[in-house]
Amino acid sequence: MSLENFFNPRAVAVIGASADKTKLGRQILDNIIGGGFKGPVYPLNLKEKKIAGLKAYASLENLPRSELAALLVIIAIPAPFVTPEIKKCGQLGIKNIIIISAGFKEAGPAGAKLEKTVATLALKYHLNILGPNCLGLINTWQRLNATFAAADKETGNVALLSQSGAIGAAALDWLHEKDFNFGYFISLGNKAVLDENKIIEYLATDKKIDLIVAYLEEIKEGTALMHLISRLAKHKPVAILKAGTSPAGGQMALSHTGALAGSTAAVKTGLDRAGAIWLENLEELFNLLLVFRKESWHNHGRQDLSIITNAGGVAVLTADEISRQNVPFSRSLDLLGDAQAAHYQKAINKTLADKKVNNLLVLLTPQTATEPFKTAQVIAAAARKYPHKLIMASFVGGAIVNQARDFLEKHNIPSFDYPEMAVRSFKKLIAYKNIVKTVKTYRQPAVKVGSPLKKADYLKSFGLLKKYRLAVVKTTKYSPAQLKNYHYPLVLKIVGPAFNHKSDRGGVIVNLENAVQLKLAASRLVKQAKKDLKDRQNYLVVQPRVKKALEIIIGFKRDVSFGPIMIIGLGGIYTEVFKEVKLATSDLDLKAARELIAGLKIYPILSGARGQKKYDLKGLARALVSLARLANEHPEIKEMDINPLFVGEKKVLASDVRIII
Amino acid sequence: MSLENFFNPRAVAVIGASADKTKLGRQILDNIIGGGFKGPVYPLNLKEKKIAGLKAYASLENLPRSELAALLVIIAIPAPFVTPEIKKCGQLGIKNIIIISAGFKEAGPAGAKLEKTVATLALKYHLNILGPNCLGLINTWQRLNATFAAADKETGNVALLSQSGAIGAAALDWLHEKDFNFGYFISLGNKAVLDENKIIEYLATDKKIDLIVAYLEEIKEGTALMHLISRLAKHKPVAILKAGTSPAGGQMALSHTGALAGSTAAVKTGLDRAGAIWLENLEELFNLLLVFRKESWHNHGRQDLSIITNAGGVAVLTADEISRQNVPFSRSLDLLGDAQAAHYQKAINKTLADKKVNNLLVLLTPQTATEPFKTAQVIAAAARKYPHKLIMASFVGGAIVNQARDFLEKHNIPSFDYPEMAVRSFKKLIAYKNIVKTVKTYRQPAVKVGSPLKKADYLKSFGLLKKYRLAVVKTTKYSPAQLKNYHYPLVLKIVGPAFNHKSDRGGVIVNLENAVQLKLAASRLVKQAKKDLKDRQNYLVVQPRVKKALEIIIGFKRDVSFGPIMIIGLGGIYTEVFKEVKLATSDLDLKAARELIAGLKIYPILSGARGQKKYDLKGLARALVSLARLANEHPEIKEMDINPLFVGEKKVLASDVRIII
Repeated sequence: MSLENFFNPRAVAVIGASADKTKLGRQILDNIIGGGFKGPVYPLNLKEKKIAGLKAYASLENLPRSELAALLVIIAIPAPFVTPEIKKCGQLGIKNIIIISAGFKEAGPAGAKLEKTVATLALKYHLNILGPNCLGLINTWQRLNATFAAADKETGNVALLSQSGAIGAAALDWLHEKDFNFGYFISLGNKAVLDENKIIEYLATDKKIDLIVAYLEEIKEGTALMHLISRLAKHKPVAILKAGTSPAGGQMALSHTGALAGSTAAVKTGLDRAGAIWLENLEELFNLLLVFRKESWHNHGRQDLSIITNAGGVAVLTADEISRQNVPFSRSLDLLGDAQAAHYQKAINKTLADKKVNNLLVLLTPQTATEPFKTAQVIAAAARKYPHKLIMASFVGGAIVNQARDFLEKHNIPSFDYPEMAVRSFKKLIAYKNIVKTVKTYRQPAVKVGSPLKKADYLKSFGLLKKYRLAVVKTTKYSPAQLKNYHYPLVLKIVGPAFNHKSDRGGVIVNLENAVQLKLAASRLVKQAKKDLKDRQNYLVVQPRVKKALEIIIGFKRDVSFGPIMIIGLGGIYTEVFKEVKLATSDLDLKAARELIAGLKIYPILSGARGQKKYDLKGLARALVSLARLANEHPEIKEMDINPLFVGEKKVLASDVRIII
Repeated sequence: MSLENFFNPRAVAVIGASADKTKLGRQILDNIIGGGFKGPVYPLNLKEKKIAGLKAYASLENLPRSELAALLVIIAIPAPFVTPEIKKCGQLGIKNIIIISAGFKEAGPAGAKLEKTVATLALKYHLNILGPNCLGLINTWQRLNATFAAADKETGNVALLSQSGAIGAAALDWLHEKDFNFGYFISLGNKAVLDENKIIEYLATDKKIDLIVAYLEEIKEGTALMHLISRLAKHKPVAILKAGTSPAGGQMALSHTGALAGSTAAVKTGLDRAGAIWLENLEELFNLLLVFRKESWHNHGRQDLSIITNAGGVAVLTADEISRQNVPFSRSLDLLGDAQAAHYQKAINKTLADKKVNNLLVLLTPQTATEPFKTAQVIAAAARKYPHKLIMASFVGGAIVNQARDFLEKHNIPSFDYPEMAVRSFKKLIAYKNIVKTVKTYRQPAVKVGSPLKKADYLKSFGLLKKYRLAVVKTTKYSPAQLKNYHYPLVLKIVGPAFNHKSDRGGVIVNLENAVQLKLAASRLVKQAKKDLKDRQNYLVVQPRVKKALEIIIGFKRDVSFGPIMIIGLGGIYTEVFKEVKLATSDLDLKAARELIAGLKIYPILSGARGQKKYDLKGLARALVSLARLANEHPEIKEMDINPLFVGEKKVLASDVRIII
């Protein structure tokens, strides 16, 4: 169902509008009226005839039928009374609904049942439903404030989504104080029907919106979200703050919204792949809003940062942060402590007149001659003169600079209490510009399922690798009868489900030089593992020794939301120590695999830096792509590693494999 | 010269006091009078008879002689006129001087010459001189504001030092706005005479001060500072923000103050050793002031953090940051969105009544039922009731929560715009508590210089190692005559000043199995390096092959300020890749060396985790301690590495050494 009428209704009805001004339904009604919504507004109330000066209706059935198709119904009554109203909407042909009411999934099993009914009705009647348990919707372009929070009336180009009502409320309060104009505010609530994907899909086509920022606690359809964002990223940045990325936070998110926090690594990998801007916390979210003006992310000239300051020390600290953040740095101009507004004016104008300067940070500390307020005016004037350049300010201090800071905010100059914040926010912009250059649309890889693996037998796993053209070290079951026929030196391993961590159990014996040593080693292993060897899935294998190769790990882990997440990194004894790995989604082609490998810290070694030997990078990339294909085509495999994968100068050989079904 | 009278003068004179209210000298005079300084105040001016209602004097000679010993003279006249006044002070027996005037070292060679004269006079007459080029001194306990900046009059227990006047001014403005009461503010300026060491030495004995926070651009006497801070750290925390830690920032610091930014690694290593609190930026500095109340760092009970919130989402984000910062976390109590001040009150009191709770963070977002201001009052009341517990607050939002935030600040509740900031600041407190447990007084190692090394000959360097009981791989000059007598396999190396990076130049050939291979390899090397081998300092050596050992690097680099900085880390091909190293000052004993090694990521491998073999940890620690002794006793060596140091199961052998004199 299109969201066109949901976002731009021609009329609005509030179920639960009340004569009591403290009730949520009434607050919403007042906000709609006070906000200046142009269409008809219908309060619904069983008892009252008139509310807030408007005629009240007892039931949706009493409303003018012609309005119903483009009507938005806002429901703010106790949960048990909600579903009958939804049903009535369906029957009357009303399509667009916001359920403000709490008492659903977040409130326990009974609420969850109610929420399921809501979803079922939505499916049956093709309804757009926001919520339940949400703050509502604001569309400043329609002057529609269908929430119980205060909001400014100016229009803007940012859409804000929040899965948490409380964070939504805090954001609205922050926006209000900063005089920040936004386009839409959408409180997702429990996402019974409309989720971030459906909303973003609509916003993608809305030309009024050029930046989407979302606070999410759970992403259920990761692959679909990657597809959406990756198509958008080049011309409409999408920034996401995903809460619950830590074990403790994830646990709390679970108890808080009933959200199952997915694997953080998977979410981060998927959103990176899609070209989303990753936000770590609320400070980053709010600061992003300040810096991501369309003009600044559309300016594709030089992207280094220039600084003008009246305080050398502050400039030094800023340069330290610039260095830590690896932000390109152009120059710093120190006007010295006695700089007045006129000095700033001259320096700012001269700097901005330079075509190579696109980004300027103006620093100020309150010294004797300093004119903070006048300097703020100078900055605002320069920003008007150069609308396509990014001009940020950081006035460090307290009471003396406060008024100037307020002035800067009112004039849409990104203003930061500390210069470090300005640098970190600017870094997000630079990072986005790099994303724009390379991001490609994500498409979920086609799954042509072959015959699924039923048991992860060790030698059969090697067979599966070979099917996907992954070369393997020749591996055969150990047989005492063959002792004289083996080519030594050999490696002896004990394998099977009981030996997934065989090295830790002493189950790998290397450098067996002859039949005597092998026989001895084999009988020792058999003795140690007598019990496990009764299970036929556990057995001994022999492999030739591989020399002059680097030990690499490749593998994947399947995420319910984002699909298989591929891993590549350093194998052998340093795997756990350095955790030197890179992750990727499973839509890998050779080029992407090569780039992933080039991002490893050990890349200089792999590629033969400093005149050392080169390893088979192409073969390594091919192996990873083959494994990704395997991951896509065998959805029954939950997790799989090849460790070590021996990467030599000429070839790449899988030496060990672990599969979890 | 004791600083007792400098900090607590009985009278104050201002040279450069003027009838013109816009002049610095006059502003300082007005601040001294307005601040309520109790002793006599003497304006000095050649022309005026009266300034600001006080009798003015033409010269220091005209002041009552009895006052001179405990007089503080503040000089705010052009630089060229300063030195005669200093001389006069010396001759009159005046000991305590602040030079506000700029125009010294920071202004070029002529100024530098003037500054040298100041230092010479100070030495001659035993003068305490603060500055030049500084903001002055504030001692709230004396109601003495001898700066040209505004300041509050309340007394406090924090001493603030700033090498930058501009940052000092910003700090004073910030302190004023936050109603933060401090004890001393000391603007160091060019540090011609009094530097951070002399000031901190005085503050160490001042019982009114219990926290020292310094912004520094240059630390000239690192070893002395380490000694001072390490003695203090347990009972009086010292926090330092060192600007210019990045290459770019360091370069700017140089041009800014003429400060030679030392090696960042050395500064950080030295200050860590001393138990100083390391500040990364201004935000951390200001936030530290909020959290480091004496009560909170003197409370030695459980140090996990509890949370009370009305917003699940914000608590989840806070938990994410807690996890990132590795802060111990106790519990989170969600009062839900409709929590009013009374709910907060009940929850806060119940939580604080628990003896195990020492640290509480109260989170709030403005929702419909929320009472931000009343909740702030509740928090302030709880803080009064539990003065020894740390209660922080983060009210997230804008206009609605602002008044409550102000109230919290006025009542000394650490209040943060974002909960992440609270967590990061709390982390500093936890880290300090850990420092307190273990820090030992730093004493500069005694230097009993033996015969200094004149040339870094390769084989002589091995001799030096042996002298310090560092076992070395048997290394001899290659001789074709010995081809038949060598024990194979061997390693052949080309060594000497031209081959400091011999691996990169293909100058190490391993696994030579017999005389034929060795001869061939040697003649190839000789051919390649013909030119360099003409210099007798370059030659070929042979070593036996060492098996089953980990390659480790140990070494040191001498810092002009902090002395030798020892390094230990992973050697071999991964050294550059992972930069897995730990640094330490050269006062290492075996215990400290063991702890340093235990901090390495590869420690689990060294110590034989997961049933693998154990390496000779004791031998490794001994080798590092020996090298530290060598570093202390050979000040002529600027830099030295042993790489690789082969660490085996039973012994530790130096296989290569590089010395720079």
